[in-house]
Amino acid sequence: MTSPEPGTGTHPGTSTDPIRVAVLGAGGKMGRHAVRAVTDAPDLELVAELGSADSLQKVLDAGASHLLDLTVPQISPENVAFAVQNGLHAVVGTSGWSAERRTRLREQLADHPQVGVLIAPNFSLGSVLASAFAAAAARHFPSVEIIEMHHPDKVDAPSGTAVRTAGLIADARSEAGVGPSPDATTHDPDGARGALVDGVRVHAVRLRGLEAHQEVLLGGPGEQLVFRHDAFDRGAYMPGVLLGLRTVASRPGLAYGLDAYLDLG
Amino acid sequence: MTSPEPGTGTHPGTSTDPIRVAVLGAGGKMGRHAVRAVTDAPDLELVAELGSADSLQKVLDAGASHLLDLTVPQISPENVAFAVQNGLHAVVGTSGWSAERRTRLREQLADHPQVGVLIAPNFSLGSVLASAFAAAAARHFPSVEIIEMHHPDKVDAPSGTAVRTAGLIADARSEAGVGPSPDATTHDPDGARGALVDGVRVHAVRLRGLEAHQEVLLGGPGEQLVFRHDAFDRGAYMPGVLLGLRTVASRPGLAYGLDAYLDLG
Amino acid sequence: MTSPEPGTGTHPGTSTDPIRVAVLGAGGKMGRHAVRAVTDAPDLELVAELGSADSLQKVLDAGASHLLDLTVPQISPENVAFAVQNGLHAVVGTSGWSAERRTRLREQLADHPQVGVLIAPNFSLGSVLASAFAAAAARHFPSVEIIEMHHPDKVDAPSGTAVRTAGLIADARSEAGVGPSPDATTHDPDGARGALVDGVRVHAVRLRGLEAHQEVLLGGPGEQLVFRHDAFDRGAYMPGVLLGLRTVASRPGLAYGLDAYLDLG
Amino acid sequence: MTSPEPGTGTHPGTSTDPIRVAVLGAGGKMGRHAVRAVTDAPDLELVAELGSADSLQKVLDAGASHLLDLTVPQISPENVAFAVQNGLHAVVGTSGWSAERRTRLREQLADHPQVGVLIAPNFSLGSVLASAFAAAAARHFPSVEIIEMHHPDKVDAPSGTAVRTAGLIADARSEAGVGPSPDATTHDPDGARGALVDGVRVHAVRLRGLEAHQEVLLGGPGEQLVFRHDAFDRGAYMPGVLLGLRTVASRPGLAYGLDAYLDLG
Repeated sequence: MTSPEPGTGTHPGTSTDPIRVAVLGAGGKMGRHAVRAVTDAPDLELVAELGSADSLQKVLDAGASHLLDLTVPQISPENVAFAVQNGLHAVVGTSGWSAERRTRLREQLADHPQVGVLIAPNFSLGSVLASAFAAAAARHFPSVEIIEMHHPDKVDAPSGTAVRTAGLIADARSEAGVGPSPDATTHDPDGARGALVDGVRVHAVRLRGLEAHQEVLLGGPGEQLVFRHDAFDRGAYMPGVLLGLRTVASRPGLAYGLDAYLDLG
Repeated sequence: MTSPEPGTGTHPGTSTDPIRVAVLGAGGKMGRHAVRAVTDAPDLELVAELGSADSLQKVLDAGASHLLDLTVPQISPENVAFAVQNGLHAVVGTSGWSAERRTRLREQLADHPQVGVLIAPNFSLGSVLASAFAAAAARHFPSVEIIEMHHPDKVDAPSGTAVRTAGLIADARSEAGVGPSPDATTHDPDGARGALVDGVRVHAVRLRGLEAHQEVLLGGPGEQLVFRHDAFDRGAYMPGVLLGLRTVASRPGLAYGLDAYLDLG
Repeated sequence: MTSPEPGTGTHPGTSTDPIRVAVLGAGGKMGRHAVRAVTDAPDLELVAELGSADSLQKVLDAGASHLLDLTVPQISPENVAFAVQNGLHAVVGTSGWSAERRTRLREQLADHPQVGVLIAPNFSLGSVLASAFAAAAARHFPSVEIIEMHHPDKVDAPSGTAVRTAGLIADARSEAGVGPSPDATTHDPDGARGALVDGVRVHAVRLRGLEAHQEVLLGGPGEQLVFRHDAFDRGAYMPGVLLGLRTVASRPGLAYGLDAYLDLG
Repeated sequence: MTSPEPGTGTHPGTSTDPIRVAVLGAGGKMGRHAVRAVTDAPDLELVAELGSADSLQKVLDAGASHLLDLTVPQISPENVAFAVQNGLHAVVGTSGWSAERRTRLREQLADHPQVGVLIAPNFSLGSVLASAFAAAAARHFPSVEIIEMHHPDKVDAPSGTAVRTAGLIADARSEAGVGPSPDATTHDPDGARGALVDGVRVHAVRLRGLEAHQEVLLGGPGEQLVFRHDAFDRGAYMPGVLLGLRTVASRPGLAYGLDAYLDLG
């Protein structure tokens, strides 16, 4: 039997329970992509689609085993608490899950030791892998900088992914005892050197035509190593969503970040 | 007859006079590269190498027809004035030639209508072409940004080349009636969006291992156009130096920028 | 008055006649994009949309001044002949316009000296600019190679754009007397060096996630110049389609290639 | 105490024995770089430089604890056998160490259980990391291709590094049950799709100005992940050489590939 393209759908789930998915926020941009991806995956079953006006009871009525939360920060914690309370596993792509919220969720999960929850700030496998590898490699190079590039309708700079990548890099370098990147700049009147995030220079480009892209540049004597990730459209997030849905039942407790489900050593 | 690699040396000069070159600043980094490049070029003859202690009289004694000035801003104007006074053509790679200095030189050249002088802030053919093409293309795209990348021992940011490129782009867009690049950024507390130079965002990366690199990114609905130039070492400047020496005698008066000698329409 | 983003729509047409557009092939992928782009452009008016079952008479009944042909090679010549016959300007994105077909069209246009026709193998401004600039620059560098990258559902390699770019480069280098790119390869058992098209090495990458991308790499001693174009979706072709519709009435006769309408010196 | 730039020299060796290095092949290109790098490293001592005419006895006379072999395939095995015989650790950058030669060396090392030997086909940290990470990531993406780019004086294509990277990727994908990259190509008369190495497409670019560069492109629905490595000059190999010299004494037996000394999970 030939194997399918990874991330496109047909490999078996990691749980023997059937994966019956309820999508919350099904009418949003991510939601619509997710509805299609779950529907197309042979080992997943879409049992409910909820919009903002729907009652959570619909999830139970449909017999869902998994909840996929793609809503808004205001109601995501309530949705997830409902899932845990009812023994459903949850995969969460909604933002706004502060450390405090995650602590409260961990407390609730302590009483439901068989339930798994994944909260992923970024569902792109490529982005998560690039950040993790860049951090691992950054221990070996004197210089590191980040360039993130997005469409010009984005209101904040730098991107959340760039900030998280800078943090991972800073942690790895600190642990390895690597000092700051060398920089002799003494004259930069207009701020061309960009932002300093956890000691790492981050540059934000905004360009019509682009979607979401990031480069981590590592430099040492006579060589450069570049990790580049391009997310061309929201389809980029679906393999990560499916991986989350297939894996969460076998990982009780709270996982924060898709990294936890990838074999990154 | 098969043709040589362009820029490597054997094609005929554009002047019928022999090209007898005196190199000033022959002991510096650029100077040493230039001495070798002139020596290796079959149609050029190296007749004198001058260091800071040498008298300019040495240039005349050697019978030079061309002077290549690779010295320092303090003495470059004096060297060029001496060349013009004595009917020698001059190619100048020294920085610091302000508009005022160039005006004074033009006045002197008016009295020597057969003499040609080229002052080039950048001798890299690739860099000059990239900047010129980027400016021409920037008329057709809503978005444009510049990323320059250099070794971390550089003290100023952004680079002079990036500033000149931004100026060329700004002029081309102004002439074509193109407005500023779209940018919805409202939150950028640490300056990740970089410097604004003539209305164009410029980002400066400093990385061990790099030499001198620049990307101009142009974006429009659904597409991106990137012009990237890499100067790996000072050898990158020699084809431009040789082109200057071969062409200057046929272009009386002052040319500022290597662009003037390239067929850029 | 602030100026709009270039290529997005509101600048005045180059003709004083109103631009009343009939789209042929309106139901295809390109056609649907074009219908939306024409509708959104304030200075253009969409007066008719034709599918394969519609009679060309519909174009005249709607009072169209311009015909946009996005059909199939089998019927495109007939459509354009009809337009010329009736004094309409035509912009053509359909493939299959061989030299022979173009010759016949030129003969017909001789009898209609006020009619303009543009046949464009590629409507992406960025792609056309990249190819033109790459060819102009290729005169100055010993080495040149092309890498084209597309989605893996493409059946032919290399792409038509890469073949045209190689041809433009070959012509420019031949005219400038530049010899073949240096290449010492003596051992390449599996064909890693790619295809030789008009003397230029062309490499074709096929990768899930990509749409249509091309890099032209130029190299000389110590430097590299890269022209990269990315077409992320069919929206990339709309600025070129609009430019064609706005310009064609002022350019009687046949123009082949969007280059003719860009100021490329 | 502030930490130095990684790979540039002053951190403590992993062994308590002083690292007294004899360089064999000291007159070659790599050898000259290595002599300088060892001399500049505060925790290493250069005790002997040998050329092809020198007797190996010189190594013992100088009291070397480590041998760095940068010679030629014909004599490298003899040099290493001599080192092992005399209880010296060896770091080897010479090519030609076939599986058969390595087996024989392992047999000899069995009798010298305290001696470490590192044979590294590639001393660039960045290159080794890029290949390892690309292989790890390639399990998660349907598409993968390799583009290697070198100076045009190289006689073989593709490069040995590209072949090794393709092998690592093929192993990782086979283990993960990932099938071949999707490819609908049916028409490629001139071989633009490049070489197929262990089931992975490899493209070889040759360009004046370049040294040694490689890109691994991974693609999935809506996204791309690129690992790019640039080796600008032989200085790129020195951090790896120093890492090898500092680590080999603590790793008895034979290590093949620098990977073994990096923390790659």
